Amino acid sequence: MTLIAERLLTTLTEAEKARMEKVESVLPALREAAAKADETGEFPIGHIALMREAGILGLIVPEEFGGLGGGLRDLAGATFTLGSACPSTALAYFFHNTSASRGLLPLEAIEAGLFSEEENPVVEAFAKKVLTLMAGGTWLANFASEEVKSSSANIAIATTAEPVEGGWKLNGVKSFGCATGVADIYLVTAKIAGTTDANGLSLFLVKRESPGVASRDKWNGLGMRASANDGITLTDVFVAAEDALTVPGSFVKMLQMSRGSFVGNQLAIMANYLGAAQGVYDYALERLTSKRFADSGKSIASSPMHQVIIGEMTERLETAYHWLRRQLELETSEPPLLPKADVYRQWRMAKGSISEACFDVVVGAFKACGTSAATMDGVIGRGLRDLSMALVMTFPPERGRLEAASMITDDRENELFASVNK
Amino acid sequence: MTLIAERLLTTLTEAEKARMEKVESVLPALREAAAKADETGEFPIGHIALMREAGILGLIVPEEFGGLGGGLRDLAGATFTLGSACPSTALAYFFHNTSASRGLLPLEAIEAGLFSEEENPVVEAFAKKVLTLMAGGTWLANFASEEVKSSSANIAIATTAEPVEGGWKLNGVKSFGCATGVADIYLVTAKIAGTTDANGLSLFLVKRESPGVASRDKWNGLGMRASANDGITLTDVFVAAEDALTVPGSFVKMLQMSRGSFVGNQLAIMANYLGAAQGVYDYALERLTSKRFADSGKSIASSPMHQVIIGEMTERLETAYHWLRRQLELETSEPPLLPKADVYRQWRMAKGSISEACFDVVVGAFKACGTSAATMDGVIGRGLRDLSMALVMTFPPERGRLEAASMITDDRENELFASVNK
Amino acid sequence: MTLIAERLLTTLTEAEKARMEKVESVLPALREAAAKADETGEFPIGHIALMREAGILGLIVPEEFGGLGGGLRDLAGATFTLGSACPSTALAYFFHNTSASRGLLPLEAIEAGLFSEEENPVVEAFAKKVLTLMAGGTWLANFASEEVKSSSANIAIATTAEPVEGGWKLNGVKSFGCATGVADIYLVTAKIAGTTDANGLSLFLVKRESPGVASRDKWNGLGMRASANDGITLTDVFVAAEDALTVPGSFVKMLQMSRGSFVGNQLAIMANYLGAAQGVYDYALERLTSKRFADSGKSIASSPMHQVIIGEMTERLETAYHWLRRQLELETSEPPLLPKADVYRQWRMAKGSISEACFDVVVGAFKACGTSAATMDGVIGRGLRDLSMALVMTFPPERGRLEAASMITDDRENELFASVNK
Amino acid sequence: MTLIAERLLTTLTEAEKARMEKVESVLPALREAAAKADETGEFPIGHIALMREAGILGLIVPEEFGGLGGGLRDLAGATFTLGSACPSTALAYFFHNTSASRGLLPLEAIEAGLFSEEENPVVEAFAKKVLTLMAGGTWLANFASEEVKSSSANIAIATTAEPVEGGWKLNGVKSFGCATGVADIYLVTAKIAGTTDANGLSLFLVKRESPGVASRDKWNGLGMRASANDGITLTDVFVAAEDALTVPGSFVKMLQMSRGSFVGNQLAIMANYLGAAQGVYDYALERLTSKRFADSGKSIASSPMHQVIIGEMTERLETAYHWLRRQLELETSEPPLLPKADVYRQWRMAKGSISEACFDVVVGAFKACGTSAATMDGVIGRGLRDLSMALVMTFPPERGRLEAASMITDDRENELFASVNK
Repeated sequence: MTLIAERLLTTLTEAEKARMEKVESVLPALREAAAKADETGEFPIGHIALMREAGILGLIVPEEFGGLGGGLRDLAGATFTLGSACPSTALAYFFHNTSASRGLLPLEAIEAGLFSEEENPVVEAFAKKVLTLMAGGTWLANFASEEVKSSSANIAIATTAEPVEGGWKLNGVKSFGCATGVADIYLVTAKIAGTTDANGLSLFLVKRESPGVASRDKWNGLGMRASANDGITLTDVFVAAEDALTVPGSFVKMLQMSRGSFVGNQLAIMANYLGAAQGVYDYALERLTSKRFADSGKSIASSPMHQVIIGEMTERLETAYHWLRRQLELETSEPPLLPKADVYRQWRMAKGSISEACFDVVVGAFKACGTSAATMDGVIGRGLRDLSMALVMTFPPERGRLEAASMITDDRENELFASVNK
Repeated sequence: MTLIAERLLTTLTEAEKARMEKVESVLPALREAAAKADETGEFPIGHIALMREAGILGLIVPEEFGGLGGGLRDLAGATFTLGSACPSTALAYFFHNTSASRGLLPLEAIEAGLFSEEENPVVEAFAKKVLTLMAGGTWLANFASEEVKSSSANIAIATTAEPVEGGWKLNGVKSFGCATGVADIYLVTAKIAGTTDANGLSLFLVKRESPGVASRDKWNGLGMRASANDGITLTDVFVAAEDALTVPGSFVKMLQMSRGSFVGNQLAIMANYLGAAQGVYDYALERLTSKRFADSGKSIASSPMHQVIIGEMTERLETAYHWLRRQLELETSEPPLLPKADVYRQWRMAKGSISEACFDVVVGAFKACGTSAATMDGVIGRGLRDLSMALVMTFPPERGRLEAASMITDDRENELFASVNK
Repeated sequence: MTLIAERLLTTLTEAEKARMEKVESVLPALREAAAKADETGEFPIGHIALMREAGILGLIVPEEFGGLGGGLRDLAGATFTLGSACPSTALAYFFHNTSASRGLLPLEAIEAGLFSEEENPVVEAFAKKVLTLMAGGTWLANFASEEVKSSSANIAIATTAEPVEGGWKLNGVKSFGCATGVADIYLVTAKIAGTTDANGLSLFLVKRESPGVASRDKWNGLGMRASANDGITLTDVFVAAEDALTVPGSFVKMLQMSRGSFVGNQLAIMANYLGAAQGVYDYALERLTSKRFADSGKSIASSPMHQVIIGEMTERLETAYHWLRRQLELETSEPPLLPKADVYRQWRMAKGSISEACFDVVVGAFKACGTSAATMDGVIGRGLRDLSMALVMTFPPERGRLEAASMITDDRENELFASVNK
Repeated sequence: MTLIAERLLTTLTEAEKARMEKVESVLPALREAAAKADETGEFPIGHIALMREAGILGLIVPEEFGGLGGGLRDLAGATFTLGSACPSTALAYFFHNTSASRGLLPLEAIEAGLFSEEENPVVEAFAKKVLTLMAGGTWLANFASEEVKSSSANIAIATTAEPVEGGWKLNGVKSFGCATGVADIYLVTAKIAGTTDANGLSLFLVKRESPGVASRDKWNGLGMRASANDGITLTDVFVAAEDALTVPGSFVKMLQMSRGSFVGNQLAIMANYLGAAQGVYDYALERLTSKRFADSGKSIASSPMHQVIIGEMTERLETAYHWLRRQLELETSEPPLLPKADVYRQWRMAKGSISEACFDVVVGAFKACGTSAATMDGVIGRGLRDLSMALVMTFPPERGRLEAASMITDDRENELFASVNK
């Protein structure tokens, strides 16, 4: 049996294969629900139980905490696989998995001696709680970003936590973040009231049904419509002390341990889009090779125009694979192939290059399949809408390239300065 | 008062201004209905009466037949203007106007002596009927294209007309064509049963409510959703002899008289898309300059990334204007600036270049405005869907360029051959 | 007889035709000398006399001063025509003609009342001297730019003029500027010593053989090699008072009168590149259609790959024409079609779009013609080198777009501000 | 010590490091000679002895035949390394190494049982002769391609070998092929007179000084000027039987054993171009970060325009690395990751994508560095000329993509056909 993830990962270990088989077990249900989910813009609620029962909510949780023990390759393979059937579900699943970094990175930071002896048990308890919940079948929505824009920071957090008897009181608005109203628990990033820098950033496990928690108005997305991305408002929401990680600087220390971008794993979001693009590509090719010209009997695909478009689509699709595979290699190789700063810079470019290439693939499919496929509800029309989201999610290609240019320029100027001073 | 069409046409004559003022009079109603029309995918039925009362159904019908006496510049100006408010309505309006060529070109062909003395009165009667109907406020849907694909012809017609007592019996299926179920009369192109080439192509005026006429299943388009593009089926539909133009070769003779592509006027479809792209561009610029960064207080538009995207969008938008203005100049100048073959070749490229440029503009707007604007129902999301249709309508950019290349290559080979034989 | 300039200007007046015939009279000599001129990197010295005798050194000088009375259309037509034969010569000819603006604009500024009654005769005398010299057959090299780069200004001038008995003493280095060591007189822009803003900018007519004038080291350009672009050094060079325009603010007042970019006429530099691109395109097409495959006997041009490239080349070539024609229309129409600020902004984009499109054309020709044409000395290789210069001359495409974006953003922000304050 | 090849290969084995150190030992001499070699268009004759003494002529010859035992990774690493200093020399070195496949592949074909028992010793003797010569320090030029173009085949061979007493008599013209007049021995592909298909293709070792061998007119290339690419004419050239491999079908059997494109190793030609592009990139970055604006004191690199260009250049450079690394992985992994047909198809695209990306990098560097770097002889100007050759060498990007499209379409149609017949 050929696994879908092999298209991306090329070769899998036996353990990876076993995990990907679990992932693939949910595909028939995802495929069947995808069109309706897109039309209504509703996350198919049954998918939660489906994935819980398939045992994949703990995909990247270590086995010692009850998880499947997968790593970033597994997560990318999983979102790629799920993305080929229902990118919306894959996106929500991705965000659930990002919560794992809030358990894994603190444990690594303890190991690296970044916390004090006093802090260690507090941090460890929270980390293990997150991981054990996930492995136990709890869906954790991850609410980090907010709507306000800052010219200097990638993410600005305005949600605050004030200390109250026995815990904390949260107030704020979280924008983008999948599984609103669906996840069992919301993992919320907020700053301790009165703090002014990243050291005040803290984590809170908020139950979906807690008093003061509400979903924002329904987000009527252009694509990825069934990912329940409405966002939440928090009004005087109480969180018990043991459900929070408020040790000063803990968020920053987590970031230090991450190998890749931000808190890591972000490349799996692009694996989702690539899986979706591959799905659209396959559909278009099948359609174009099976339909025939009425006069010549040759396939539509064989016309000069279609050959040009197919050539371009294929080149763009492969380009996306190259960028993603390289990034995956950079973030998983032991020992690391490149310094963390280089891996990070590479990601800022990779994100844009992959999303542009995937979008180009569906635009090619769209042009090649013509007006009869240019519908709201078919694979092509839905693909165009879903993949367009790749261009804006997190940041557009132009931003990543400018950031890379800025880092490179600074590096070179510093080198020059250093060599002058030698 | 500055007219919207001035952005495209730069300077207008007084008569053109008067006509464009009539066109602009319907804009408030179009703007108000646009979002709902897109959401439901329904042509706003009231727009028919609105435009009839505004007197613009005879926009390009000569004054002697009761029309406003406009030409191709007016049509392009009108679709551009309407496209900035509701591209779906503008598209349907465009197709109504294309019917005029079935009146104007036959009259020109008579003038040019292409018909025999016997044929002249028959052709003239039909031509005048078409023009008088339009000027009188009848909305004429124009059904030419069908779904079957031919590798050698741009349009293949399988709908047939058989002679019956007092007229003709039509059978067939017409695919793309706006105003299905909405227009008063369908102008149908069919071939006389038994004929095998373009000389058999004939025209029929079919009443929407005639027995045997049915709308196909509702077309759930990705964009241009409110243009009522479902298409029709014709089952033993009777058309009286006087409502048909079946003179052998009449269709071909019409084509001979056209100055531009096919039966002419096609560039106005691109003016519609350009008007829509300008609308999205304006919206994006206003949004980006009025929103501010929370920390610096500067407009979002001023960020380096946004400056890059705005520069690109502007360049692409202007490129679209250049191609369209030149094509308009080529198809309206007296005397003609270039031979008809060159004008035709230029159009095959222009269509693709304009549609790609317009699509790039909305993709730029989409990237610049980010996730919060990436909704199904806003100006940006709708714009992306509407403009994507420009890429597939009629033919994709790649096809036009290959056709141009083929014409150029043949021309040069013929020149070489000629110079060798001199 | 079809004139080459018709390809750009489409239709010419009788007077324009007469002027273009004079221009075309020098083409055979230019064509013959072009390859050698490129190889040696030497301006063909005989071309000076050739063009003087053809009477075209006063092409855009009004007839009242002895010139041919042409305008910007003529200049663009001339550089386009000459560029198709020898872009280097066309470039030097262009820079000679730019000197005319230093005569024409001051006269316009006087007319507009920008100078005082006292200043008028001084300004007028200088202006007439420049124009009369040109019409009389003097080749005027125009040295404005210098090597130092400023982050805020497009051109920074460090060359200074100090007052001395009977005139001025000039010191400085001028970089790019054609006809070094070839022109009869160098028109030098310098600032009066001690001044700190543009009001101090002044003009000086420096004889090539004046003491203290020297050519810099030979510029070994990648392309445009025969334009004598070495630049000059000025060491205590004396210029008589009557050969200088030092009225304070005169340079700024000239700029105010210009309709287009900078001191105007710059688009003719792009007409030169477009003429060159058209020449390469024609050569490639002829080559590809006359060579045949050994097995099939079909022309090389007919292969699928060549058809794709020819389609792209043609689209890019036409795009360049569109941008240039529109700019020409904007800078010559009476009354002006758009405000000066819009015309200027359009030029900043046009320059980049035309140069990129022209470069793409020759890269396409290069790919299509293959290794056998990829030589240093043939039309294709020379074309690639010459056209690459279009990308860097004045400023690259990326800069023009960012400037346009900045102007647009400022405009919109001001509009918003204005509407808020109303 | 960081090896240059690590930039491409990321991690090297100890053996690879040792080989790359040998390669790097010749760099200072190559760097010093590069500018002059380009200017004169002469292969620096001393480089032959230099590389022989460095022991790298047998780089990819197995140790059992006296070589260094390197593989495709080494060859790519070597051309990449040399390309960063002198791409012309690297190109000639590459072609020398391609000769090794004419020894290695026949031995593999024997191993695979493709030859008869009678043929085995003949094939083996020739194969070992080629390998032993190379390991022993003989420079082998590889002359395969010819000028005639075929619409159906990638390479058409018209050079013939007729049997004569004791050997063969060769007649024909070989076009592109490095080290003309420089290599010790020319490895010539010819067809046995009278044969009509690929089974007649044979190999001949022709001494440079043999009677009847002549260099064609000097090739005045736009780039890669010092690779001695003139080509040769063969007029009744005698080759002894033992210096020929004329076993029918041997060429075809070699192709069967190749893992990659054609007879393999072709990707190393792209590694050369990538090394050159990296060199130009590094030079541009250093120049732009060390030069400063006169007014602000900031580096030129920091301007918004330069940041845009640097971002683009970097993205394109990384894209080239991705395509090349993946191709290298596909052609070297054990066991093979993909079927040979897929590896071949991938190469057809990779060649174009790498060459386009590399060319874009130098065009970016060219634009960023401006007119002062746009000279014939500097790193930027030479880089632009050298890298342009990547676009035409072997085949342009458009051809590779069309070929890939054709293979994919055929595959899909066959799959459909198979599934219908199941």
